[in-house]
Amino acid sequence: MNNIEAIKNRLKELESLDPARFGRDFLLTWEHSEDDLRAVMLVADILQLLHREKKPWRIFDYGLAISIFRDNSTRTRFSFASAVNGLGLALSELDEVKSQIAHGETVRETAAMISFLTEVIGIRDDMYPGEGHSYMLEVADAVTESYQQGVLAQRPTLVNLQCDLDHPTQSLADLLKLKDYFGGLDQLKGKKIAMSWAYSPSYGKPLSVPQGVINLMSRFGMEVVLAHPQGYDLLPETVESAAKFAAASGGSFRITHDMADAFAGADVVYPKSWAPMSVMQERTRLLRQGDREGLKALEQHCLAENARHADWECTEEMMKLTRGGNALYEHCLPADISGVSCARGEVTKSVFERYRLHTYQEAGFKPFVIAAMIFTAKVRDITSRINSFI
Amino acid sequence: MNNIEAIKNRLKELESLDPARFGRDFLLTWEHSEDDLRAVMLVADILQLLHREKKPWRIFDYGLAISIFRDNSTRTRFSFASAVNGLGLALSELDEVKSQIAHGETVRETAAMISFLTEVIGIRDDMYPGEGHSYMLEVADAVTESYQQGVLAQRPTLVNLQCDLDHPTQSLADLLKLKDYFGGLDQLKGKKIAMSWAYSPSYGKPLSVPQGVINLMSRFGMEVVLAHPQGYDLLPETVESAAKFAAASGGSFRITHDMADAFAGADVVYPKSWAPMSVMQERTRLLRQGDREGLKALEQHCLAENARHADWECTEEMMKLTRGGNALYEHCLPADISGVSCARGEVTKSVFERYRLHTYQEAGFKPFVIAAMIFTAKVRDITSRINSFI
Amino acid sequence: MNNIEAIKNRLKELESLDPARFGRDFLLTWEHSEDDLRAVMLVADILQLLHREKKPWRIFDYGLAISIFRDNSTRTRFSFASAVNGLGLALSELDEVKSQIAHGETVRETAAMISFLTEVIGIRDDMYPGEGHSYMLEVADAVTESYQQGVLAQRPTLVNLQCDLDHPTQSLADLLKLKDYFGGLDQLKGKKIAMSWAYSPSYGKPLSVPQGVINLMSRFGMEVVLAHPQGYDLLPETVESAAKFAAASGGSFRITHDMADAFAGADVVYPKSWAPMSVMQERTRLLRQGDREGLKALEQHCLAENARHADWECTEEMMKLTRGGNALYEHCLPADISGVSCARGEVTKSVFERYRLHTYQEAGFKPFVIAAMIFTAKVRDITSRINSFI
Repeated sequence: MNNIEAIKNRLKELESLDPARFGRDFLLTWEHSEDDLRAVMLVADILQLLHREKKPWRIFDYGLAISIFRDNSTRTRFSFASAVNGLGLALSELDEVKSQIAHGETVRETAAMISFLTEVIGIRDDMYPGEGHSYMLEVADAVTESYQQGVLAQRPTLVNLQCDLDHPTQSLADLLKLKDYFGGLDQLKGKKIAMSWAYSPSYGKPLSVPQGVINLMSRFGMEVVLAHPQGYDLLPETVESAAKFAAASGGSFRITHDMADAFAGADVVYPKSWAPMSVMQERTRLLRQGDREGLKALEQHCLAENARHADWECTEEMMKLTRGGNALYEHCLPADISGVSCARGEVTKSVFERYRLHTYQEAGFKPFVIAAMIFTAKVRDITSRINSFI
Repeated sequence: MNNIEAIKNRLKELESLDPARFGRDFLLTWEHSEDDLRAVMLVADILQLLHREKKPWRIFDYGLAISIFRDNSTRTRFSFASAVNGLGLALSELDEVKSQIAHGETVRETAAMISFLTEVIGIRDDMYPGEGHSYMLEVADAVTESYQQGVLAQRPTLVNLQCDLDHPTQSLADLLKLKDYFGGLDQLKGKKIAMSWAYSPSYGKPLSVPQGVINLMSRFGMEVVLAHPQGYDLLPETVESAAKFAAASGGSFRITHDMADAFAGADVVYPKSWAPMSVMQERTRLLRQGDREGLKALEQHCLAENARHADWECTEEMMKLTRGGNALYEHCLPADISGVSCARGEVTKSVFERYRLHTYQEAGFKPFVIAAMIFTAKVRDITSRINSFI
Repeated sequence: MNNIEAIKNRLKELESLDPARFGRDFLLTWEHSEDDLRAVMLVADILQLLHREKKPWRIFDYGLAISIFRDNSTRTRFSFASAVNGLGLALSELDEVKSQIAHGETVRETAAMISFLTEVIGIRDDMYPGEGHSYMLEVADAVTESYQQGVLAQRPTLVNLQCDLDHPTQSLADLLKLKDYFGGLDQLKGKKIAMSWAYSPSYGKPLSVPQGVINLMSRFGMEVVLAHPQGYDLLPETVESAAKFAAASGGSFRITHDMADAFAGADVVYPKSWAPMSVMQERTRLLRQGDREGLKALEQHCLAENARHADWECTEEMMKLTRGGNALYEHCLPADISGVSCARGEVTKSVFERYRLHTYQEAGFKPFVIAAMIFTAKVRDITSRINSFI
């Protein structure tokens, strides 16, 4: 099947859905219906096929896309830059050091000030539990008010580029990789995925990836196992919702504190480090107090705690436990690779190297996922617009 | 009247004018004829209407717009980014830290080096009296020479994004808000505007906003009152020219050292902090000497001096003095709001909140003012070009 | 002859060549055939003529161009920004401080991660002998692998914006200036160019400009004289290859340690400071060891050594030695001008001022050289594409 035929097939599938994406932000996957998610993934697929065919998919004549990165980023930064460029927007990065944006009164004002010709605002704010998503809601409310009051001629669409709760552009890219690898979303039913904590010599990695993964894969009938050492809990509400999603989709969800148990018979493994929720909360408290000594002590404590679980490593032995010994390895990158980027880390060199190109392809979906989130929010009649491209 | 009809009406008005904007920079409002200013405002209005109609107003196929910010900025940065994007240019910011541009010989050279495919250069240089405008003239001379000598295929248009003398993109946005609010420029004749100093706990704010406002509003027959405590003088030549403009336009201009006097019966109030000219000059001298102790002492002295005038605050009581108790409140934003962004500042929370959306709309004119400055400099037959958009 | 006719003439010349640029990076001029170089220069010329005619020469509908600057830059930064803008790409700068790109494993990964919609990657990495070119090869290999494995839909073209070996965008701009000044490449046969070291009070300037110049001008039959004080050697392999090129082209190449000898009867002089290769290597070693004291000592030693050769200055007296006393002065800019940018430097004020606009024109070729490197790599049928522009 050639790419154009593939696009037409996806358009047919799209017409069988009833998504409610038009005019909406994309902040959390669990705020969206299954049809919404399927539509975003289909459009992402279609945009990637158009890109392979060198057919433009521009939907804007002009306008800005603004990114606000409150944490470092390379992959997501360039994914966002690529997505908005393909859609026809110019990227402006809001550098909070050069400007004066802050929480409080000025969020409302700054959000309006930067949005007069702005179609999209992408935000990464993932460091502090209880903050990132709230900040995005604050920006969303501000641009809604300004649009409704006639200050803005258009309502910029917000895209969550990672918050304290979810990392939807990542988890949807992860899911698209699974869809591609196993031959369709329907093939995921009953497949086991091990979302597992893994050892890293670093500290303070956000919780949004595991939270996002367990809440997305559980909606498509997968057997989701969350594995982590005692004490490395995720935010309780995200664990509860994952369980509900699994029940509703005919899949399952459980937690184990044994990596081998999670890997046993798994079709997919996602070994990835994160900081315990309680540590992230304590760090937030110390940061607010400006308690440098406390922060240092916390880091030492955490690194020592991590080190107690250095055996949570995705080794060849671990991989042998998976289905046929060849589960698909997923990662959001960059991975902490033992003997490469650190002495000992999340995954051994030989395992990573075998799946390296798979992880690149996984990442390669991200620009198109972001573009699809925007596309579905801005284009009312998706089918006819896409037909105009081919 | 719909937007397209409104555009056509403005085009008719434009045809009755005789502006001389083609091929010229926009550095100071007072270098421009009233017809020039009216033309810029009409084009700004038209571009905003086109934007509301989602009709593109691109005039360039390609090319760069370069911004040089020698002072922090959020609002103007994004206004400039939006304006040049709508016109079809890509923004490049000249970061003077990463490059080696400096006053002196290299201004001439760097101006040429960055301009080979450049259509617009926007500059903010507002910190030192006697410097910002001079620097812009230096850049202007450099690109003129390079263009005349065949080094450049086009002469980049300069736009003043705030200098030591004027802030024309701001004052024209302020004026457009007045035009919109009162129903036309002709409605401003005889209306009283109080351009008043106000207390702020910060130090060293530029003089360009009040200087720009008194020199622009005085040209349209307004009764302009400049109010500030003793010693907070503006540059003398800007005060003299405001008086001349008022006399010529049938308006008036006077200075008072009593905020209540300025507010009494005012139709518009613009309470805004600035540093005394003498302080700015002293600061420039100390900065050049690298006198850190002197700078600290100056800051302490000024903050103490400011604090003596903390009663220069735009309160509900002050507002009651204005015409009908409901003068329009203007501000270039961000305002120092008492109890919000500082303990005590330029304006109380309740006053600001009542006019907040008005100030957002005021700011919303700025991208279109910048675009209109460029448009009128680059497009010879404005009417036919705009007709091609609708 | 008007510009369009000039374009058509150059297209005829282009058709007589057999370049092999399609699909290739541009890293070193000496990897390319003479036809390759002539084709790049002809296309650069054509793009400049199109620009003068205000005719767009866009070849991309969308896509990113990524620049990686591992050293400061103004001229090349804006040249690259201009070139990719004219071709239809959006610029994204990879800030290695904000990201985590580094030598080693992650180069391969990051190169893929930033390239999903990327058409061009421009790199400046000129500080350390033995590193810049190697880094570019590493990036090139990474994107080749990702393209061949289907991770990338297109193979980004690499452009060397200055490495430890060559500075091809500069040397080709220098050569285009000579071509323009003397009336054609064929007019360069037998003309003498003095690529001479010159005194500068600064330290650690890269070797890539002199290495690039002697390896390019020697291919077009010029009499190339490399002049420098004892000890200021270039990398040996670059000197050897220049000698071979000269022999093959019917020109000549020799080294002198006497500036006057080099200037005597010269048609072109290129007086420019650089650090001795041995110093650059020692500096690299000390930087890797983090030896701050050693670095300070090395700098002091080098500045003292430089100072012994302060008479290597391009003065009016030196210029009198050249053919007719009026050789063309070339420089990559910025020059260290005695009495202007430093007390004593590479060139006197009066000499520089006389040739200033020539050096600006020289620099003005650079955006079009960069664009031509990309154009020839991406467009298979150059003639018909250019005909579609006119």
